[in-house]
Amino acid sequence: MQYPEAIAKLIESYMKLPGIGSKTATRLAFFTIDMDEEDVKEFAESLLAAKRDLHYCSICGNITDEDPCEICRDANRDQSKILVVEQPKDIMALEKMNDYQGLYHVLHGVLSPMDGKGPEDLNIAPLIKRLQKSEVNEVIIATNASPEGESTAMYLARLIKPAGIKVTRLAHGLSVGSDIEYADEMTLQRAVEGRQEM
Amino acid sequence: MQYPEAIAKLIESYMKLPGIGSKTATRLAFFTIDMDEEDVKEFAESLLAAKRDLHYCSICGNITDEDPCEICRDANRDQSKILVVEQPKDIMALEKMNDYQGLYHVLHGVLSPMDGKGPEDLNIAPLIKRLQKSEVNEVIIATNASPEGESTAMYLARLIKPAGIKVTRLAHGLSVGSDIEYADEMTLQRAVEGRQEM
Repeated sequence: MQYPEAIAKLIESYMKLPGIGSKTATRLAFFTIDMDEEDVKEFAESLLAAKRDLHYCSICGNITDEDPCEICRDANRDQSKILVVEQPKDIMALEKMNDYQGLYHVLHGVLSPMDGKGPEDLNIAPLIKRLQKSEVNEVIIATNASPEGESTAMYLARLIKPAGIKVTRLAHGLSVGSDIEYADEMTLQRAVEGRQEM
Repeated sequence: MQYPEAIAKLIESYMKLPGIGSKTATRLAFFTIDMDEEDVKEFAESLLAAKRDLHYCSICGNITDEDPCEICRDANRDQSKILVVEQPKDIMALEKMNDYQGLYHVLHGVLSPMDGKGPEDLNIAPLIKRLQKSEVNEVIIATNASPEGESTAMYLARLIKPAGIKVTRLAHGLSVGSDIEYADEMTLQRAVEGRQEM
């Protein structure tokens, strides 16, 4: 016996999502059949709407339903600082702290020679153009603390510094509330390197 | 800054799926935006199709796009045996072994007084009716080895046996290829109880 076609297709669709294998996809598909018809319709509609209505901001590369995005349009934000992130969702995490008032720029990835990802595959050229014609005096690099994130940060620093713009990097060290006992060596090393006078 | 409405709605939809919290839902939503338009359309269509085309078989309760289902329609199967499972996906697992040739019946759950689930909430009355007017001489109970699965099995046995129909339960014991060292006590207890002469 085979699965009826409708469920086989749905399982296949779920399996295209990241981190979802055939067992989870099957569970989700059976769950879908038991869902309220209203909820399923809303789900299907929101999938189509997300694909149809969302674009990348032509200035910063953030995800948005209007162009330019909410942040780029906001004249009250500090136009002298650009914080560079890997992905749009990083902006959301940073905005949650309600502290940073400057602008953003999304790279949409990191340099990764292993995956054949060079500077031309990232949203870097538009960043350089932005810097040339704006009043930005500081670029804060907030790529992840992975080897690729680090080398992307280094690459950008070398590219931007000669223009006389200050380039900074987010501090790395112990998480607030974490135990030294459980910290990994790399984090401890960065915490010691970055120690500050009290 | 808030998420654009289209993505907030999609995250909300993903969160209605079991085992998917806000972090995973956000990751899936951003992944969706980067998917091929064709794939997203297919996903939306397969969600609607699954809800529209799939029903429960009016005889056995299995999931099907035609009624009665493929197995109930198949005259070559052994009409004298009914194997009772909790969920339609259990049938798929059993069919994979390519060994059992009888019929099935899906309970759609187990007795669970804690969740207010009594016999009338399960697909039990149709099973009893099936037994009354058919040539079935054995009911094999294949509910899970959970406390609820066990008590549902006991309940069914007490209900069906007086009609002179043989009621059996799947064997419990060590998994094939497993180590005694790592088996839990309940499994070992059942393996000893169910020991067979060599």
